[in-house]
Amino acid sequence: MMMQRVTGPRWKGKGFADIAAENPMSQIVKKLESSMKQSRIKAILTGSVSLLEASTELADLLNRSCIGRQIPNAEEDKHWFQLSSEETMYLQHALQSLVVVDEKGRPLNDLELWNVMKDRREAFLELYKAYVHLRGKNWVVRPGSQYGVDFVAYRHHPALVHSEYAIVVLSEGDGNGEKCSRLREWSDVQCCVRLSGSVAKKLLAFFIDRKGIDETLPSCIQRFNVEELIITRWVPEQNREECHKNDDVCNSEKVPAT
Amino acid sequence: MMMQRVTGPRWKGKGFADIAAENPMSQIVKKLESSMKQSRIKAILTGSVSLLEASTELADLLNRSCIGRQIPNAEEDKHWFQLSSEETMYLQHALQSLVVVDEKGRPLNDLELWNVMKDRREAFLELYKAYVHLRGKNWVVRPGSQYGVDFVAYRHHPALVHSEYAIVVLSEGDGNGEKCSRLREWSDVQCCVRLSGSVAKKLLAFFIDRKGIDETLPSCIQRFNVEELIITRWVPEQNREECHKNDDVCNSEKVPAT
Repeated sequence: MMMQRVTGPRWKGKGFADIAAENPMSQIVKKLESSMKQSRIKAILTGSVSLLEASTELADLLNRSCIGRQIPNAEEDKHWFQLSSEETMYLQHALQSLVVVDEKGRPLNDLELWNVMKDRREAFLELYKAYVHLRGKNWVVRPGSQYGVDFVAYRHHPALVHSEYAIVVLSEGDGNGEKCSRLREWSDVQCCVRLSGSVAKKLLAFFIDRKGIDETLPSCIQRFNVEELIITRWVPEQNREECHKNDDVCNSEKVPAT
Repeated sequence: MMMQRVTGPRWKGKGFADIAAENPMSQIVKKLESSMKQSRIKAILTGSVSLLEASTELADLLNRSCIGRQIPNAEEDKHWFQLSSEETMYLQHALQSLVVVDEKGRPLNDLELWNVMKDRREAFLELYKAYVHLRGKNWVVRPGSQYGVDFVAYRHHPALVHSEYAIVVLSEGDGNGEKCSRLREWSDVQCCVRLSGSVAKKLLAFFIDRKGIDETLPSCIQRFNVEELIITRWVPEQNREECHKNDDVCNSEKVPAT
């Protein structure tokens, strides 16, 4: 019988994979979307993030979708969430479920919000594209600053599963001959791979190519090209001929091939 | 039941994995080694490669070990093999199974051969380190020029299995501030990943760090540091939640986890 190596998600408990399968993230986000649309939810923009007041029901949906960060407060039926700039743009522009207002309470339309985000946050275009791209594939995307990367991605809710990918978003240059400033040297890449590996994540590099694309309207991000590379360490010993045999070390990482 | 993605070797036929398991490459190479030692085999150095005359028995062992390239000739019991510079050095210095002679028939000792190879072939140090490193882990290593890389690596004999890795050998610089000249740009990396992927190989980048190491003696290569990175494309769709369900597209790539 042939043995092959398996890599996959690290679920946090027994049966959690089934719970995830029975509750697809796409449906949870759909519920959030329709609930927010019905209630005409507003968020106040401060800097490049926004603040949202949520009912208990909405708070539950936001938490289950893993969108926003709940800010502790004492009131029982009022909940506050801070949305990152990507989440703010995603809820307003991609899901059309949020109205972002400025500090005076004036609503910002998609274009105004787009311009504010572009102005206030460096690399917003690339980061937002990466966020939308991953959310569109039903990945849960959270900030990665804890690991020195842009995002971490989860197969489902972080309560069920560990994050699988540490994501670095790189730009292919904006036509001015500008180069990615990070991961320029292979030693940087090795460093980042080791760091990700030490927390059991794979390094995923996103290359966002927005050369020659007019960035006036937020819809332009659909035309940005995304190229994704996974970079991992290779352990030649894991592949040696000894692993064809039935020793325990090898089998612990293998399953029979069908 | 949880489904996980499997990657592994592509055997060329049914039962070939078993044939490989029953005939470990390490034992085949050991047989070659002792046979060559007994017969005091010589090879003639021409440029940076060498030529070896082999009996039918030795030719069989060389072919089974996948060392050297047999040169067609008409005589039935005389066989000629061309050994690459890495193979020549490996057989003489690492396996101590070969005596390399110059065109006048004078034997070259390990140090003389080392100096000739270093002089005649750019990047010999890195390429040889990569070759020895892989052979030491029982990988079959063949030239990769066909795929625009330095080597390809097979789990066993190429008659049994397709090569799994396309290998690019990069130097960490020799202390003179010299940089790797290949894969300097991420676009080069993407290109190489795509090319490797199109021939069902994974791109494996070897970083050979020989900074601060005296390269006078061939034994120095033991102190070169090797860092290996696997770089592959990521297909987010393969990881989507639909794959938790029992649809055929997903299952074709999955096996049940134990």
